[in-house]
Amino acid sequence: MKDNLEIFLDLYELTMAEVYFKYKPNTLATFDLFVRQLPFNRNYLMVAGLSEIIDFISNLKFDKPAIEYLREKKLFSEEFLNYLKGFRFRGNLWALPEGEICFANEPILRVEANVIEAQLLEGFLLNTINLQTMIVSKASRITLAAKGRDVYDFSLRRTQGKDAAIKVSRCAYIGGFAGTSNVLSGFLYHIPVVGTMAHSFVMSFDTELSSFFAYSECFPERSILLVDTYNTERGIQNAIEVGLKLKEKGFKLLGIRLDSGDIISLAKKARQMLDRAGLNYVKILASGNLDEYKIERIVKARAPIDSFGVGTHMGTSSDSPYLDVIYKLSQISYDRKKFLPTMKLSQRKVTYPGRKQIYRIRDRRGFFIKDILCLDGEKIKGTPLLKEIIRNGKVIYSNPALKEIREYAMKNLSFIPAEYKSIKKKVVYPVVISRNLEKLTKNLKRDLMDRQK
Amino acid sequence: MKDNLEIFLDLYELTMAEVYFKYKPNTLATFDLFVRQLPFNRNYLMVAGLSEIIDFISNLKFDKPAIEYLREKKLFSEEFLNYLKGFRFRGNLWALPEGEICFANEPILRVEANVIEAQLLEGFLLNTINLQTMIVSKASRITLAAKGRDVYDFSLRRTQGKDAAIKVSRCAYIGGFAGTSNVLSGFLYHIPVVGTMAHSFVMSFDTELSSFFAYSECFPERSILLVDTYNTERGIQNAIEVGLKLKEKGFKLLGIRLDSGDIISLAKKARQMLDRAGLNYVKILASGNLDEYKIERIVKARAPIDSFGVGTHMGTSSDSPYLDVIYKLSQISYDRKKFLPTMKLSQRKVTYPGRKQIYRIRDRRGFFIKDILCLDGEKIKGTPLLKEIIRNGKVIYSNPALKEIREYAMKNLSFIPAEYKSIKKKVVYPVVISRNLEKLTKNLKRDLMDRQK
Repeated sequence: MKDNLEIFLDLYELTMAEVYFKYKPNTLATFDLFVRQLPFNRNYLMVAGLSEIIDFISNLKFDKPAIEYLREKKLFSEEFLNYLKGFRFRGNLWALPEGEICFANEPILRVEANVIEAQLLEGFLLNTINLQTMIVSKASRITLAAKGRDVYDFSLRRTQGKDAAIKVSRCAYIGGFAGTSNVLSGFLYHIPVVGTMAHSFVMSFDTELSSFFAYSECFPERSILLVDTYNTERGIQNAIEVGLKLKEKGFKLLGIRLDSGDIISLAKKARQMLDRAGLNYVKILASGNLDEYKIERIVKARAPIDSFGVGTHMGTSSDSPYLDVIYKLSQISYDRKKFLPTMKLSQRKVTYPGRKQIYRIRDRRGFFIKDILCLDGEKIKGTPLLKEIIRNGKVIYSNPALKEIREYAMKNLSFIPAEYKSIKKKVVYPVVISRNLEKLTKNLKRDLMDRQK
Repeated sequence: MKDNLEIFLDLYELTMAEVYFKYKPNTLATFDLFVRQLPFNRNYLMVAGLSEIIDFISNLKFDKPAIEYLREKKLFSEEFLNYLKGFRFRGNLWALPEGEICFANEPILRVEANVIEAQLLEGFLLNTINLQTMIVSKASRITLAAKGRDVYDFSLRRTQGKDAAIKVSRCAYIGGFAGTSNVLSGFLYHIPVVGTMAHSFVMSFDTELSSFFAYSECFPERSILLVDTYNTERGIQNAIEVGLKLKEKGFKLLGIRLDSGDIISLAKKARQMLDRAGLNYVKILASGNLDEYKIERIVKARAPIDSFGVGTHMGTSSDSPYLDVIYKLSQISYDRKKFLPTMKLSQRKVTYPGRKQIYRIRDRRGFFIKDILCLDGEKIKGTPLLKEIIRNGKVIYSNPALKEIREYAMKNLSFIPAEYKSIKKKVVYPVVISRNLEKLTKNLKRDLMDRQK
């Protein structure tokens, strides 16, 4: 596989697989991937990662270099290594589509497969859903805070690695961002790419004014001038001089960028100065350590800012840099017929057993009222959220284009009642456990406690 | 380039390059990459990322797909796109070796090159140093807290993407970890790989005991049994039963793993039970949401834990998930002879101008006393820390093997005076600005303020 991703897994996935191979080769298992607890200041999650997962599972196979490496470890039997050579995922995958909204304890993925196949996916699935769901959720909060103003992903330099940088641009776009500064992401995902200029660019000319003139001559219709390298007010004045010169020639200065200082008062000042000079069409972009909290404050203060560039805090989800994602066995079958529900009992970490589905109850206008987590097959009014993606190893889901995913995400966001969209206030959305699921959980708990005595 | 990494950059790097290409094609620039402020609870940083940077710069070229994509953007001149086709980095790179200790404002990298070449590296360099230096620094704190006990990287599932997962294993190893659960990292970097078992594995058997027996039969010398799926004390009892059976057959149970509950009292209980059963060689591994703060508490409480598995908090540096890394122009030459120092003046973001070097002053035993940040060429007693890595585009630095980097890192860690190694107390290490550098900064500030009037 490309980049040896078949061994992007924890060693225990393979050692457990060896044991299963020897003792329980025909066991079928169902695993749920879900978030146990929503992170700090998150009232909902917006899901992403499925596209990458479909691609991974479809191409999953163990190549020679990986097999050779495993053989060197002197841990695995030749029979098992041989099995890996012919390995393909032949099971089923159910999932929430990208852009779906979910809450704690709701399965984002449900894997039904031979226990070895289901086990060997664990690390990749967790890593993928963790990063992408975390980032789309964070980005959607920033989109909400910006109240219709454009937001751009400026996070490349501070994301945790290259894979994150690329996925972050895509996830920010799904979460409502208008584009990215990351050229590779633009290339890979056909996302709009944008850019301004750096302080070093301004500094590399004799004067700020000459740097502005040089840039605007190369990009007369697409210049956003960075005005805070030396003195911001002076910088705005220089930008106005360039804007007027462009105007004479029939061009429009696109914007100025504020990257430090008191953004609210500077933006008001800049707007006034630009308008007085007859440059009311010149946009003001703000950047510099922004997040949804700061943007909410800026928007509430009616700062005349047209768009935001957001980097670090979105690109690392800095206030909650991971999700409490877990991958739990929910049922098992030794004979491929009878399925036994399973769950974990250890302290404060109880999970729900059985093959489950989620139903969302909406009001007449489409707004979410509550979700019901139930056993698959229960008759519940509402829309089931988990979709069938892969059946017997074959992809049967038609994966939407990125633009459609973004539209779906934005539609979902609009149907979350306002109280859950608060940036700072914790409001718990009701996820009701169906009576049947509750009964199963209770009975199984008793049963397991007896069995382990 | 592999994975089109030549366009892993912010769009503005290319638009600024187009302007330089047109107006200042022969300009030489010096850029410093450094951390402006140490993050919360970090008294030092341990550097990493140079190996990946050397590899990137040596292979950097613009391939056809990238050029085609840029042409479609309708931003760039054909002359500039042609220039990109022949692009190679022909400048110089100075850097702190991996495993070096550094502090705020000290250059980690110094790039001296044609301004276009230096500019086009910006995004890649920042992203690489940000992730890797952040993680090695975090890992080294955990190593310190563990006071000689082995620590393993269990972070694969919660790191921010695949690139991060792989780099994290390598960085954790440099920072003193003993190995990783990540098989791909083991494959790529020859790091020891380790593993235990999952709760789902225990749950997939009728009883906990039968799951332990199955596992230990496959791996009689390498079993670490997870004892907290149902009831931890009962789990330890089951592990003892398996341990005794292995003993009869001449094998040694390797360990048990505690993953939830009150680790300190459970470890004491487990040690007692194991010892009483004659299994004093069976190790106790603790995992589950650990970080340096929890490990310090566990170690102080004299919990008999032999090793720790650390995931999320190390793998995302969760208490400080980014560094304040910046890439700043420090001097420029239009004629390739006379270099003009430069700096940024905007509010609270002043940087130091000129070509700089760092000297570390140590006491007789080797312990760090203070650093001196000065202009290159100043006569200072002490060791200069920035090493020459690339000269005129050619790598002249012999990059050490990973094991040597780790040894170098551990040696450096041992020479940091104890006060700066406190996990929670902020103690600022003295970085002195040389008189010459201070004078230059002051004069240039005045000069720039005059010039912009």
